[in-house]
Amino acid sequence: MKLLLKNAGILAWADDGFRHIPEGYLGIDGDIIDYVGAERPAAPYDAEKDLRGKLLIPGLINCHCHAAMTLLRGVGSDLPLDRWLFEAMFPVEDRMKTDDFIAGNELAILEMLASGVTSFSDMYMEPQTLIELNEQVGMKVNLTRVVQAFDPTEPPERNFRIPESLALFDQFHGAQNGRVRVDFGVHAEYTINDAVTRYYADRIRPYRDRGARVQLHLSETKKEHEECIARHGMTPAAWFEAMGVFDLPAAAAHCVWCTPEDRAILKAHGVSPIHNPTSNLKLGSGFAPVPEMLEQGLNVALGTDGAASNNNLNMFEEMHLAAIAHNGRRLDAVLMPPAAVLRMATVNGARLQGRDDTGCLAVGMKADVVAVDMDRPHLYPAFEALPMLVYAAQASDVAMTMVDGRILYENGEYLTIDREKALYDAKKAVERLYGGK
Amino acid sequence: MKLLLKNAGILAWADDGFRHIPEGYLGIDGDIIDYVGAERPAAPYDAEKDLRGKLLIPGLINCHCHAAMTLLRGVGSDLPLDRWLFEAMFPVEDRMKTDDFIAGNELAILEMLASGVTSFSDMYMEPQTLIELNEQVGMKVNLTRVVQAFDPTEPPERNFRIPESLALFDQFHGAQNGRVRVDFGVHAEYTINDAVTRYYADRIRPYRDRGARVQLHLSETKKEHEECIARHGMTPAAWFEAMGVFDLPAAAAHCVWCTPEDRAILKAHGVSPIHNPTSNLKLGSGFAPVPEMLEQGLNVALGTDGAASNNNLNMFEEMHLAAIAHNGRRLDAVLMPPAAVLRMATVNGARLQGRDDTGCLAVGMKADVVAVDMDRPHLYPAFEALPMLVYAAQASDVAMTMVDGRILYENGEYLTIDREKALYDAKKAVERLYGGK
Repeated sequence: MKLLLKNAGILAWADDGFRHIPEGYLGIDGDIIDYVGAERPAAPYDAEKDLRGKLLIPGLINCHCHAAMTLLRGVGSDLPLDRWLFEAMFPVEDRMKTDDFIAGNELAILEMLASGVTSFSDMYMEPQTLIELNEQVGMKVNLTRVVQAFDPTEPPERNFRIPESLALFDQFHGAQNGRVRVDFGVHAEYTINDAVTRYYADRIRPYRDRGARVQLHLSETKKEHEECIARHGMTPAAWFEAMGVFDLPAAAAHCVWCTPEDRAILKAHGVSPIHNPTSNLKLGSGFAPVPEMLEQGLNVALGTDGAASNNNLNMFEEMHLAAIAHNGRRLDAVLMPPAAVLRMATVNGARLQGRDDTGCLAVGMKADVVAVDMDRPHLYPAFEALPMLVYAAQASDVAMTMVDGRILYENGEYLTIDREKALYDAKKAVERLYGGK
Repeated sequence: MKLLLKNAGILAWADDGFRHIPEGYLGIDGDIIDYVGAERPAAPYDAEKDLRGKLLIPGLINCHCHAAMTLLRGVGSDLPLDRWLFEAMFPVEDRMKTDDFIAGNELAILEMLASGVTSFSDMYMEPQTLIELNEQVGMKVNLTRVVQAFDPTEPPERNFRIPESLALFDQFHGAQNGRVRVDFGVHAEYTINDAVTRYYADRIRPYRDRGARVQLHLSETKKEHEECIARHGMTPAAWFEAMGVFDLPAAAAHCVWCTPEDRAILKAHGVSPIHNPTSNLKLGSGFAPVPEMLEQGLNVALGTDGAASNNNLNMFEEMHLAAIAHNGRRLDAVLMPPAAVLRMATVNGARLQGRDDTGCLAVGMKADVVAVDMDRPHLYPAFEALPMLVYAAQASDVAMTMVDGRILYENGEYLTIDREKALYDAKKAVERLYGGK
């Protein structure tokens, strides 16, 4: 099946940068983009889809998410960070069972598809529920069974999470035509110990050649960063390096308190930082040194974090914030170019996820395409499409979300997930978790 | 005509705070709210409107706007602040004529009505065009003909803007059943001189008893703040005080660089600061000391600034930013309570505008009501309505905007302005201003 998207604006990719085609054609053969250009392609297509007034952009990649935490949206939002985590989050998470994870994932997927996310990296419990759900949904997801260790006397061989993590990789990495990728995961320096981390790093190192990668949280808060120094005599980045975790390509969420030396460590090991501006600001964690990381040549990507600390999964908000917050902090109106921000949300995200075949609109890439409706009063005039997308467009302007050439969402309708069932499941889960509220 | 809004959540106002009614009734008699409560009112109503799943909030008040700058949206967004102003903004503004101001205002009104704004304060050229347009539209607007002085040798009596400013007040203040209020205006310290400012302050002082107020820009950038000190030996706030401008209640946009002493001056004179977080961050101006101003007891309100530096007129974005940016700057997750932010966008805005009869949902107030559709995946679960509104709701969730009991916008439809004509006018204006682009 060959499909031609026509008459749309296109943010194509050429010569390592975005190129705006004001009105053009994007051809798809199966799940692959086989044409991008201003002129109608010579080859015939089986079907054509008129997208006049829309702007085609690469699918957005949410690189740090705890999807099922949608069920904890807004819980304890009046508490300081520590109390929020221990008094509001953990007790609910403790009660969560398989059906709750399913429901939370469904709700997250409704939100992400409607806001142009085609791929996301997830770090949460019972990742199998997400794999199973995604069989039907058809998004791309990098997921992980994170390793933690709460009992310092427990020998590493007894940590049941490690074999689970390895088994998850063996069973599911590359599943669903490559849409599912399994990452290894260490939750954070403060929820594990040296022995378990070294042991785990040794176990996962051989998987490097099979394309394995790691997810972790890094220097999110000042407290975490400083307590690590007190505990280990080194920063979290230096500690992860010493433990051998960075022997695999890693994705490090937050990096708010990473020093220039930390950033050099990340650079040396090909670690991609993930910027989560809403969560970092809302929780009072601070401003990640994003312009500084980009200047150092790091592959910075973007994420929403969980809905509990955001309070949504809206990559347009993250792009907007990433584009303006650092200008304000550094008193420089042109510090964060919109193109760099869109790159973080697409190209860099794909690289972080280990997906070489997505992240931009070019011939030979997978057809992960989002159509943004630019024909709206708040987007007029739009002399330049890319700044308008980053500074003014809203998640609600997304008209279509396509993954691997298959339309998953269009004009308010979900084609691969039942909206009403998902909302019903979420309601039932909320009743279970919060007692009928 | 008595209208009963029923089955909606309501953020009512009681005992100097918001009170959430999960499902209730809001009665309107003409343009006045005559009932708010969880129980059905005993009195009969002529008509009922079922708003199940919606949350009723006070109309949002955008306290700093240059409405017609929608026509300059995104222009020169890759330039640093000074060059942006002199190379991108001024040359276009120089070409703007009456029809362009009309078109720019129409476009702004489309955007503001759709995002829940019922009242706004505007500072731009040819304010009469806005008054005339609003006759049909029916919003509330505080507008001003600002005074500037570019030739230091020109005697104050020759400044033609001063009599125009006074005449505008005499002719239109209180027009359209009070929906139009005329403010006096000084653009900023750096676009006027001592003699003209003193002269103008003397002229407007007698208007104080007629409810007159002042709009101005204050300490938006570090450069502006420091150059004022170099020029006058005092900060902009101290200078405005010395000139007598603060003898009237004033609304001071930005206040990014206001010192604690400046803030004491504002407090002493009842000056209301206006926080414009998107514009301040995007343009690299910095972070206004909002929590500090609130701690000092100042009446801080919210605004979007013009679309040229934003790039839209979305008060939901401003609320969201105001709620999280300062937490990040001060490393405190509970620094800016959502209730304080909503108050800035409603109650404080009404007070700033000199509108005692709007800004909250309570019996006896004008029926300026916005219905937000909370029945959306990205807003579920919503254990507490107010934090969800501030942290997660989007402008696109606005289902209805009502001013003085009259519905101006509902479910994508404009009832008092022709959307297609407005977009056509904007297109024609863009062609005139930018030569067919």
